[in-house]
Amino acid sequence: MGHSLYLPARMFNTASAIIPAMKVSELGEFGLINLIRSAVRYDGSGHTPWQEVLVGIGDDAAAWRIDDHILLATTDTLVQDIHFNLDVISWEELGWKVLAVNLSDIAAMGGIPKYALLSLALPGELQAEDISRFANGMMELASDFSVALVGGNIAAAPNVVITLTIIGCSRGEVILRRSTACPGDQIAVTGYLGLSAAGLEMLKGRTISDPETSSILRCAHLRPKPRIEEGRILVEQGVRTAIDISDGLVADLDHICECSKVNARIKIEQVPVHPIVTANFADHQELALSGGEDYELLFTADQATVARARQALHCPVTVIGDIGEEQSARRVTLVDRRGNTVPCGQGGWEHFKHGIAEAKFP
Amino acid sequence: MGHSLYLPARMFNTASAIIPAMKVSELGEFGLINLIRSAVRYDGSGHTPWQEVLVGIGDDAAAWRIDDHILLATTDTLVQDIHFNLDVISWEELGWKVLAVNLSDIAAMGGIPKYALLSLALPGELQAEDISRFANGMMELASDFSVALVGGNIAAAPNVVITLTIIGCSRGEVILRRSTACPGDQIAVTGYLGLSAAGLEMLKGRTISDPETSSILRCAHLRPKPRIEEGRILVEQGVRTAIDISDGLVADLDHICECSKVNARIKIEQVPVHPIVTANFADHQELALSGGEDYELLFTADQATVARARQALHCPVTVIGDIGEEQSARRVTLVDRRGNTVPCGQGGWEHFKHGIAEAKFP
Repeated sequence: MGHSLYLPARMFNTASAIIPAMKVSELGEFGLINLIRSAVRYDGSGHTPWQEVLVGIGDDAAAWRIDDHILLATTDTLVQDIHFNLDVISWEELGWKVLAVNLSDIAAMGGIPKYALLSLALPGELQAEDISRFANGMMELASDFSVALVGGNIAAAPNVVITLTIIGCSRGEVILRRSTACPGDQIAVTGYLGLSAAGLEMLKGRTISDPETSSILRCAHLRPKPRIEEGRILVEQGVRTAIDISDGLVADLDHICECSKVNARIKIEQVPVHPIVTANFADHQELALSGGEDYELLFTADQATVARARQALHCPVTVIGDIGEEQSARRVTLVDRRGNTVPCGQGGWEHFKHGIAEAKFP
Repeated sequence: MGHSLYLPARMFNTASAIIPAMKVSELGEFGLINLIRSAVRYDGSGHTPWQEVLVGIGDDAAAWRIDDHILLATTDTLVQDIHFNLDVISWEELGWKVLAVNLSDIAAMGGIPKYALLSLALPGELQAEDISRFANGMMELASDFSVALVGGNIAAAPNVVITLTIIGCSRGEVILRRSTACPGDQIAVTGYLGLSAAGLEMLKGRTISDPETSSILRCAHLRPKPRIEEGRILVEQGVRTAIDISDGLVADLDHICECSKVNARIKIEQVPVHPIVTANFADHQELALSGGEDYELLFTADQATVARARQALHCPVTVIGDIGEEQSARRVTLVDRRGNTVPCGQGGWEHFKHGIAEAKFP
């Protein structure tokens, strides 16, 4: 049972002839996740805790049952010069951001974050004070959500790699999934989109003369606010399907469609582009559709549930489209006000599909 | 409450004048952990989950209570060319090892591992097949202990950085701590020591002519076996204090002494050096005392409890010394058969204290 050093052939399925010749960059992030998922589907001894697992690989967080509780766990990594640039982001902002992106995954499950484990890989020549600032930025956000940093690990490394794991729980019996969208559902989004990607454009050199606008853009990209409370309210109001917008609206909606085996239609003129983005960026629509890192919640539910959720939430909620039956064609379609299909760029942030030179920063 | 961007002065205490001028490499791994711990001791709102925390930063794993359960969580990172060398370790072995070192931390708490989250930072030019092999090596060990890989994250990076988080539980109300050693306790260790460090010496170039010996050494360093079952038995037999030997016998015993505010005396001739190490390595005693990565359990308890544990365990158990009152002098003392103090090298593996060039590999 599982003592051979190589994957049984069945695990490779159709991919067996392809994998050996592919580079990680060619297979891409989601191809790699599927590769690992196929190795993990191990049906060996029957003594595994799999039966308690509600959600495994492929949602915003893992979920499992323990007595009357649902526990949640998620992990995310930020790599220097891939996800952040120390010339631009302060150590306090970095501490905040690495926690925020992880908390957002718990928000997307409708959960409550509780405990954090921090793993730091650091070059020895860094200043110790910077690590203090990093910890301080992280604890500032942690205290807002009563998250306790309970453990971690520090290792030497040639460049900074930060991995955070959050363990949380669901208050009730229900969590938000990617796999539960139904044809007929409305698609809705919290807040406004594009501000984080616009902030990134500015940090990469796009000039913004107004200091207040500049500050809002910087803050949107470097100090995002996870929608923890909003995720809880969605659960309470009967919503069952959500994801947080990290890769970009179109890409993240595509994840929902893939997991739910449905199609989606976005009415492009209804997408709530942030007014600062519209006012300052010619490519505002592209930034809102594909920029990513908004950390808003994208959710689907029937019309009445969406109306109820909108009533209960303390933030803007916009209906941007609807879910349809699965088709063999493109999973996410953009339409204009006349219902005509609008061409959609590749969009969305996927690791390895970007070269490091053009990778997202900071 | 906690919205300033800088640590309140009280958090720096005596260190406030020192931190700004120090490099990470000068402060060292344990100095950094203390730095982060001081930022984390946030006594703000009172709504934090801290009161449920049994063990925070500074033990082998974090522990907290949820109803009648104790949950455990630990995370560890392996960095390419710091902790492993891809010219020497196979991808299957790497998958095994990153899980094993994390499981060992759960073993040192007397816990049962349940769920794993994997974070991979990878260069794009790697072969996808290697990641399959890595996952397969990990799942081989995971299936031995019924551990479910439930989530994770994949990111692009210039070199391989692997972070694994394990979530486990304790079957009863008790866990093994570093902080509970008492004067009068015996100090005992499972198995034999030095084999992993000797394996590393071999992999770095020391010639071992006998193929079987070579294979045992390689396996000890690259495919360590976590003492999960043994940790459980220690708890059942009444032991309350343990650590796994990752940094080295002397260094890890020093961690127990620091946490328990006691001193320790090792009778050097009683240390169970593995016979293969004694037969093949002139510096066998140094390898057993300071080599590290044995992933054996080092524990303390009164004489009757140690005797009971030894009876119950299915592996060798050796009493190697005893615990004494805290003194201002060196916490861990080595003595020969006549009771004379033996000089003890720096010993033990600490990140940043070694230059990368001389760092441990693979």
